[in-house]
Amino acid sequence: MSWNSFGRVLRFTTWGESHGPAIGAVVDGCPPGLALSEDDIQPWLDRRRPGTSRFTTQRREPDRVRILSGVFEGRTTGTPISLLIDNVDQRSKDYTEVARAYRPGHADYAYDAKYGLRDHRGGGRSSARETASRVAAGAVARLVIPAVRVRAWVEAIGGDTVDHARFDDAEIDRNPFFCPDPVAAARWEGLVDAARKAGSSLGAVVACEATGVPAGWGAPLYAKLDAELAAACMGINAVKGVEIGDGFAAAALSGEANADPMRPGDAGAGDGPTFLANHAGGIAGGISTGQPICLRVAFKPTSSILTPVATVTPAGEATSIATRGRHDPCVGIRGVPVVEAMVALVLADQALLHRAQCGPPPLR
Amino acid sequence: MSWNSFGRVLRFTTWGESHGPAIGAVVDGCPPGLALSEDDIQPWLDRRRPGTSRFTTQRREPDRVRILSGVFEGRTTGTPISLLIDNVDQRSKDYTEVARAYRPGHADYAYDAKYGLRDHRGGGRSSARETASRVAAGAVARLVIPAVRVRAWVEAIGGDTVDHARFDDAEIDRNPFFCPDPVAAARWEGLVDAARKAGSSLGAVVACEATGVPAGWGAPLYAKLDAELAAACMGINAVKGVEIGDGFAAAALSGEANADPMRPGDAGAGDGPTFLANHAGGIAGGISTGQPICLRVAFKPTSSILTPVATVTPAGEATSIATRGRHDPCVGIRGVPVVEAMVALVLADQALLHRAQCGPPPLR
Amino acid sequence: MSWNSFGRVLRFTTWGESHGPAIGAVVDGCPPGLALSEDDIQPWLDRRRPGTSRFTTQRREPDRVRILSGVFEGRTTGTPISLLIDNVDQRSKDYTEVARAYRPGHADYAYDAKYGLRDHRGGGRSSARETASRVAAGAVARLVIPAVRVRAWVEAIGGDTVDHARFDDAEIDRNPFFCPDPVAAARWEGLVDAARKAGSSLGAVVACEATGVPAGWGAPLYAKLDAELAAACMGINAVKGVEIGDGFAAAALSGEANADPMRPGDAGAGDGPTFLANHAGGIAGGISTGQPICLRVAFKPTSSILTPVATVTPAGEATSIATRGRHDPCVGIRGVPVVEAMVALVLADQALLHRAQCGPPPLR
Amino acid sequence: MSWNSFGRVLRFTTWGESHGPAIGAVVDGCPPGLALSEDDIQPWLDRRRPGTSRFTTQRREPDRVRILSGVFEGRTTGTPISLLIDNVDQRSKDYTEVARAYRPGHADYAYDAKYGLRDHRGGGRSSARETASRVAAGAVARLVIPAVRVRAWVEAIGGDTVDHARFDDAEIDRNPFFCPDPVAAARWEGLVDAARKAGSSLGAVVACEATGVPAGWGAPLYAKLDAELAAACMGINAVKGVEIGDGFAAAALSGEANADPMRPGDAGAGDGPTFLANHAGGIAGGISTGQPICLRVAFKPTSSILTPVATVTPAGEATSIATRGRHDPCVGIRGVPVVEAMVALVLADQALLHRAQCGPPPLR
Repeated sequence: MSWNSFGRVLRFTTWGESHGPAIGAVVDGCPPGLALSEDDIQPWLDRRRPGTSRFTTQRREPDRVRILSGVFEGRTTGTPISLLIDNVDQRSKDYTEVARAYRPGHADYAYDAKYGLRDHRGGGRSSARETASRVAAGAVARLVIPAVRVRAWVEAIGGDTVDHARFDDAEIDRNPFFCPDPVAAARWEGLVDAARKAGSSLGAVVACEATGVPAGWGAPLYAKLDAELAAACMGINAVKGVEIGDGFAAAALSGEANADPMRPGDAGAGDGPTFLANHAGGIAGGISTGQPICLRVAFKPTSSILTPVATVTPAGEATSIATRGRHDPCVGIRGVPVVEAMVALVLADQALLHRAQCGPPPLR
Repeated sequence: MSWNSFGRVLRFTTWGESHGPAIGAVVDGCPPGLALSEDDIQPWLDRRRPGTSRFTTQRREPDRVRILSGVFEGRTTGTPISLLIDNVDQRSKDYTEVARAYRPGHADYAYDAKYGLRDHRGGGRSSARETASRVAAGAVARLVIPAVRVRAWVEAIGGDTVDHARFDDAEIDRNPFFCPDPVAAARWEGLVDAARKAGSSLGAVVACEATGVPAGWGAPLYAKLDAELAAACMGINAVKGVEIGDGFAAAALSGEANADPMRPGDAGAGDGPTFLANHAGGIAGGISTGQPICLRVAFKPTSSILTPVATVTPAGEATSIATRGRHDPCVGIRGVPVVEAMVALVLADQALLHRAQCGPPPLR
Repeated sequence: MSWNSFGRVLRFTTWGESHGPAIGAVVDGCPPGLALSEDDIQPWLDRRRPGTSRFTTQRREPDRVRILSGVFEGRTTGTPISLLIDNVDQRSKDYTEVARAYRPGHADYAYDAKYGLRDHRGGGRSSARETASRVAAGAVARLVIPAVRVRAWVEAIGGDTVDHARFDDAEIDRNPFFCPDPVAAARWEGLVDAARKAGSSLGAVVACEATGVPAGWGAPLYAKLDAELAAACMGINAVKGVEIGDGFAAAALSGEANADPMRPGDAGAGDGPTFLANHAGGIAGGISTGQPICLRVAFKPTSSILTPVATVTPAGEATSIATRGRHDPCVGIRGVPVVEAMVALVLADQALLHRAQCGPPPLR
Repeated sequence: MSWNSFGRVLRFTTWGESHGPAIGAVVDGCPPGLALSEDDIQPWLDRRRPGTSRFTTQRREPDRVRILSGVFEGRTTGTPISLLIDNVDQRSKDYTEVARAYRPGHADYAYDAKYGLRDHRGGGRSSARETASRVAAGAVARLVIPAVRVRAWVEAIGGDTVDHARFDDAEIDRNPFFCPDPVAAARWEGLVDAARKAGSSLGAVVACEATGVPAGWGAPLYAKLDAELAAACMGINAVKGVEIGDGFAAAALSGEANADPMRPGDAGAGDGPTFLANHAGGIAGGISTGQPICLRVAFKPTSSILTPVATVTPAGEATSIATRGRHDPCVGIRGVPVVEAMVALVLADQALLHRAQCGPPPLR
């Protein structure tokens, strides 16, 4: 069933199709009194914006966000914040081919099977364009938890992985791949260029780290912080895997190798402990430990490729399809700001939930 | 925040600690008229039951389930189904050590940081014992979608993986590891025995396949079927990773290699298409395609090990801890029926949701 | 906490303030394939539109709705439907007085106490202007349950009640009061005119009837159909009471007087029963009986009056306030289309929920 | 659809039928560290317990509550609190008549229409017995907001209303009617006795006041505090009306008559204002004002009467039915502790929600 809201007390709802007049998000439950203007949101959208390098789709969207409600005299009022982004550069004529046959690996057939009809222009609701709404909402979430820094990067493209010995945070913003390793970034230029020229596509792994999260956010079981993050990231288009901390690698370890030993914190006994490892990715028993929250997200290669693939028409007849139009050769690259946004939204929601249940007395 | 309910229209809520008098689940929203008795639930609980081989915890729990409500004359009435399982074999004296210091990698420190106190007996709420409630609820979910078969197995223990060329579904129930490969099962006997004798623990990967799911279940974005399954499985104790279909392997592929081509279905044009591959794990655009739903779940090794690990006391002083008590050397093994239960619960919920939005007339 | 979504599977979220650039609603979970255009929504908005007679606020708002998403080639796609209405006739200068002191009976003080700040222009989010979003969303809900007719009217203004012996459904649309009794309508002209000229305001009772609801919608307890309707209507600005069926009058009756006897339905034994009375308002045990759903809603007189009332300033100093600006002398009148919308939204949601749990096979 | 959970962050789920082995509630989201034992709950259950006077049903139920989880060493742990009450005095043989034909005004026909079957023993899930679970959950909620006092009483039985000039809070606990007016209580003895002997039943109005609620709890619109309370109380069996403050009476007033003027609080400018009236029932714009929260709830007379009423059989044939068994002549009387419980649950939930969104900095 269509379900376009996310969050428990800090909630957001997105709407909009790739080729409609606009897309947007409504953020509800935001604390009042936070300074908020379009300028707090626009920089994050600009990071995600298409057409900024030859390694992303050539669709040109200014992605200017407007705040339509929930802010008065520069401060959030505690009422819903409506964010709207106009669609500018639609070219629906590109998509007649998509109407004719199902693109394998894309949502086309599944949408028709579910709804009996679909908006085939640019993938409609299933387009990665929707993620702009998430980035806008995520910018609001960041303001709710100003002490938390959420930082993502591309960890691998098409199986080619960065070297963590060369990890340089500043480098992430210096190349078009959000790559922390300048040597890998140079390699990826060739890799992605080749895919783009061949009309092919590449998968990617995005890693994300959130620092400044105190111990105590999350829940023991059904809304384990791991589970909230997994749902948030797996809900992004093209994502097919999520790991917290060591993830699948931990499944190959022994308990001794996976332990995160503790010693007293540097500030003394009243302080939280210092951890000597972080296999758990900053979450134990579903609850944050005060260590950095670490996760990795797998983006599949998009199915929009020029090589013809066998498929069927809506009438069920055999055919093949090659996807022209304007597409990202590696959709995972622009996934970086989207993963950051979703992680920020989960953490801000959990911060408020933790305050609800475990906030300071007196209760009022 | 404590959040112990799961599901959107078919919802269940669990309660209970490892060493309290009982544990249980309340299943709400179940369709009326389904034949249901304890006999429909007990076999699944028996699969998960501890103490059945030397490879699981030696705690002896009969795990007899009682249905306290929601069934009349052998049929579900549509009202909430209360399921209760008594705790029989608690030995709280085993856990004084756990009260004295935080077990690294376990929920101990995080619970105290969040709640300011914790029930340290057997891990309290964070004990894998809670998963019995999930298995009981999952047995009800299976009845909601009788055409769907949900089947899980252990894919790897401590990095030692099954050989799919020897995959034998019947073998899964013949060994104490839910292992589909008899050769791997034989190897794991030595592997797990060694870990058990050393007071160590091992991680595992559990794979799950659901067949009989029609095309059309799920949602395009925030409740993508991938995301619902990820949240469900990542909410299980000790799980740190979830993959749908090829998961992280897809991130290393090109679009051509990852394509799931289609040809007309065998029954002709009116039938759904036949897929020539299933990299997507049976889900495209968040919606089921009619192919088998495939996922993999990473269980970390439990942190309950005999080797002393550096840690701190609640007062913040340095110490070390070795966890005695009765523990699973590989908690992933008993994760198999739990993963099945959670997948069944998600699918049954999605089946009802799909009927809500897209069901047959007269509504539309 | 700010909570601007309503509904369980057919959900809508509204946003916007009286004096912001626009207001709107996002409707999620709508079944696909329904014919929908602005022309299906606009007539309902026109009924609620201000400035159409001297008995409502003189604010002039065209209230043109635009559909920004969720519709393709004239049909709903099953994805979220974004509805936007521009604010045109704001006059913020009217509201400086409201910033200076709290209007007793209005949300002013409570907002400040909760949020620490408020958008005082036209009441901000607490303005009755928000109800246009509900009416727009309700128009979509009507399409989900085309066999149901939801019809409301004003039952009383300032304590002057209609005579049901003169009830004429067609009359409701013939006078500016949605009054089914032409004689009462004539009286109200004088009544409301007098209040308007005196700068006073009047309370009202709105009655609503939904016909065509089949037996079986609703839930036994916490989401009793009575409770869903009560929450929906009590969530409208200025509403302070809701009755289902005989409501408070039933509390004065004996069981014999309150009985709704049944006899076999006219179509024979296979048909539902015929009821000989409807004290229950079409709902028994929280579930619809097939009779008309009947409810009554109490609107208080707005606190926006010209007579000075004692109050305090945000700084806590004594003062008095008289509310100028443009206001409805009887906000209950324009409550009629709003109550209809909320009832339609509840019923459509319940229709989908009923289909989810109790729908036809093959699920069961 | 079956929906047996209530609340947003402090949530509870109830289960159980009148004639099953037990009933119960699971309370989730409760703050940790609260002192809680059965002794905190039992007194409230004892107030609701049947068989304590001749004016309530003669079913004898000890209603002993057991806490099965969520408490450790006398304190809440923050995990779900499972509360269980055994059913002791079932006499299913009394109910064969109920299986034979639908009791008009009862849930019988509606349940069959919805679910296709029903547990006819004692009304099954629709029995007022379920309200014991609410009272138990409500006792936990009271501990969350210790500064709030929730106090209800019977305001009228069968149309005979108390005289507020004789209102005596202490009197409420001195008579079997929860009546604050000793003169009315004396009258009601005759009134209810007559109904009981005649096998009839009477409706009632229950009033409730919550003092100690600070300004700021609630939400502006869809979860207006008025709406939350209305949903909570309308979800109780047999309730057909809810009013906040003056409710329907306010609909007959002018704005001047309905105003709640303010003057500076007694403690000076930094204090909240003093209100000179409370027509609004302590809630303005959906948010508490710091005044007492006041509401009234209408209970219909139960349909379980000895006078035969025309009805139909499940096969659709004409018949009549007289309800024997053991029933409350005035179910509203025992509604008093239930209304209190639901109001406490709403207020505790809103207290936590308010802390979530508007709690003090820093956020952690």
